[in-house]
Amino acid sequence: MTMYDIIEKKKNKQSLTKEEIDFFINGYVNNKIPDYQVSSLLMAIVLNGMNEEEVTNLTIAMANSGDKINYNFNTVDKHSTGGVGDKTTLIIAPIVASLNCKVAKMSGKGLGFTGGTIDKLESIPDFKVQLTDEQFISQINNINLALISQTKNIAPADKKIYALRDVTATVDSIPLIASSIMSKKIASGASNLVLDVKVGSGAFMKNLESAKKLASTMVNIGKNSNINTLAILSNMNQPLGNNIGNILEVKEAIEVLNGNGPKDLKELSIELASYMVSLYKKITYEEAFKQVTEVLENKQALAKFYEFIKYQGGNIEKVKFTPKYEYKVYSKQEGYITKMNTEEIGKIASLLGAGRMTKDDVIDYEAGIVLNKKINDYVKVNDLLATLYTNKEIDLTNNYLEIIEITDEKIENDLILGVIK
Amino acid sequence: MTMYDIIEKKKNKQSLTKEEIDFFINGYVNNKIPDYQVSSLLMAIVLNGMNEEEVTNLTIAMANSGDKINYNFNTVDKHSTGGVGDKTTLIIAPIVASLNCKVAKMSGKGLGFTGGTIDKLESIPDFKVQLTDEQFISQINNINLALISQTKNIAPADKKIYALRDVTATVDSIPLIASSIMSKKIASGASNLVLDVKVGSGAFMKNLESAKKLASTMVNIGKNSNINTLAILSNMNQPLGNNIGNILEVKEAIEVLNGNGPKDLKELSIELASYMVSLYKKITYEEAFKQVTEVLENKQALAKFYEFIKYQGGNIEKVKFTPKYEYKVYSKQEGYITKMNTEEIGKIASLLGAGRMTKDDVIDYEAGIVLNKKINDYVKVNDLLATLYTNKEIDLTNNYLEIIEITDEKIENDLILGVIK
Repeated sequence: MTMYDIIEKKKNKQSLTKEEIDFFINGYVNNKIPDYQVSSLLMAIVLNGMNEEEVTNLTIAMANSGDKINYNFNTVDKHSTGGVGDKTTLIIAPIVASLNCKVAKMSGKGLGFTGGTIDKLESIPDFKVQLTDEQFISQINNINLALISQTKNIAPADKKIYALRDVTATVDSIPLIASSIMSKKIASGASNLVLDVKVGSGAFMKNLESAKKLASTMVNIGKNSNINTLAILSNMNQPLGNNIGNILEVKEAIEVLNGNGPKDLKELSIELASYMVSLYKKITYEEAFKQVTEVLENKQALAKFYEFIKYQGGNIEKVKFTPKYEYKVYSKQEGYITKMNTEEIGKIASLLGAGRMTKDDVIDYEAGIVLNKKINDYVKVNDLLATLYTNKEIDLTNNYLEIIEITDEKIENDLILGVIK
Repeated sequence: MTMYDIIEKKKNKQSLTKEEIDFFINGYVNNKIPDYQVSSLLMAIVLNGMNEEEVTNLTIAMANSGDKINYNFNTVDKHSTGGVGDKTTLIIAPIVASLNCKVAKMSGKGLGFTGGTIDKLESIPDFKVQLTDEQFISQINNINLALISQTKNIAPADKKIYALRDVTATVDSIPLIASSIMSKKIASGASNLVLDVKVGSGAFMKNLESAKKLASTMVNIGKNSNINTLAILSNMNQPLGNNIGNILEVKEAIEVLNGNGPKDLKELSIELASYMVSLYKKITYEEAFKQVTEVLENKQALAKFYEFIKYQGGNIEKVKFTPKYEYKVYSKQEGYITKMNTEEIGKIASLLGAGRMTKDDVIDYEAGIVLNKKINDYVKVNDLLATLYTNKEIDLTNNYLEIIEITDEKIENDLILGVIK
């Protein structure tokens, strides 16, 4: 078997066998196959696709390429394909943990225009993102929830392939995206998994059709790998909630757990949490929904959030928000907001200091954006659209104005676009 | 402009501009663009194609990547896409030179299952394949013909890309094959060019349709680059002539120049030479054909061959053919030969010692095959099919038998399958 023949087959639209996929992944991880052969194969996969069996085999090969975690209890996880202002993990994890579902989460740091959960938690003074294996397991046994920074060697094949895809224009492929996400979930020992597949201007998947395809590919991989998997398709035509930026997002998560907060963030959080509880407890969505709204109303979820933060050393009282600069963005037009280029809003937040553009960038936890107006809000000239917060002198108000569209009529803007089981 | 964006465009089936193609070629030759990005682009080109303008721009960019030769006289060249037993250059070059058409040819060494013209000439004792620039030009001025080994830095971009295509399964692409061949011809200063595009089991192009596409792509590039170009499509379902191997092919070329030799080799040589003379002298094919047959009949072409060999120091009288081993292949069946796997015959010749499988292999000039029976010949059990010659003890008679098919009825087997102007 040679890598040449494997590339040749995929180029000719043939399916690759399990043995061929294993040969490719093992050879690449062990530095026996050069980048230039892999990038050629990746482009052939982007253009000629993979069937369900191939994607499953690719995912399993990548999951087997490094450490594999096995818990001796059931866990439930949520994974989002990435969105701007998405702080749902901070809300959902305490909700489901307060309902006796175990959440054992290891997250990566954020890179690019969407922030990472670990970065958000690190904005809380003294919060420890690293625990020993014993501390991690004992914390889950005690309070059902631990959330730490990834230190294991999870799916190194995915890491290596992802870095190559990133520089060879081979990112936007459903088989490659699906296997990348699911290989990490399999290696991380997930037993129940709710996927939040984002659709729209702020997401990888720009249209509903491709998002559905990605969702069902991942759900199938999950089923083929003994993970109870379900996917929600959710709208990412605008940022989720009103706050973007690390401290700002922690604050907004607490608002939702307090029963307040923006409607879209609250609705999506309840939806995701309900499906997680339903999978974990093997109960109906309706029953799970009832339990979720209950722990929100009686503040048990909020109490769980504080318990979790304290358990990992965090000092929520010490959180300060006193950025040096604030730039207010006022509307120059009248009408309904009908378009927000969400990816660009994420980039503006990054430029303000909220995110990393390279691995070595240092995050400014106070930097970010608070949105005053969102899609289908009616605005008049000089109405406040948003406030940009930062500790460096950088006026991006015009950049913000350029990526907002205001027109005469409202548009359709459903938050939940489908569920794939 | 970034290489990433260029890959992205071709992946999305968009056309690349001249500036983008120049950026890619210059960046790659100057080691500013890594192999893994180029192989990703090459696979996108293989699968999504290129239009005529893109192929022309790619060819010109590659031609401009190294030395460019300019003669102060017109020349005529012939290029074959590669076949087994193809010694036409040895026949054609003296024919057209004896008709006052100038042939200034720099050839590469052969690699793989088709031998190179330079290797065939080196099988003649004392023949010099290297001349100074002055010797080369003065020889052409004196006898209209010089044929040397390539020493200039011709189209280094093509060299680098070809080496990468060879290991990334991106060889079989009409835009890439056409630009590879034509870039070298443009840089070598060809003013008239006849292409011999091979079709069949011993050729890159396995069917007539793709061969026609390749031929017309190259003819268009030639026209767009001020080279009078014409292509002949010729059958490569069996080796050309009866002899394969370096000395064996020189001998057979002399036979044809002597008025004898196998019919197919003679017919194709006359056809190619006639088109070369027609292009160079701007006369009709019919008139050129008359002149060509005349110099064959009156042995002027043969005299030119001997003059050429002597001029470059070769000693044709010293050619000896006394290989240590000869293996005779006898038929085990009765019927018509209807299939000869030509690529495999080439590989057997290489294994006997006639060709190189790697750059460092040393050629055995005496090694080779003489075919006694070819397609549509009727054979009886125990009839001699072929004789394998070699200086190493290696019996490949069974290999030969395995790749010949004998059936009850003849098949269609035209030699010349079309002309593309």
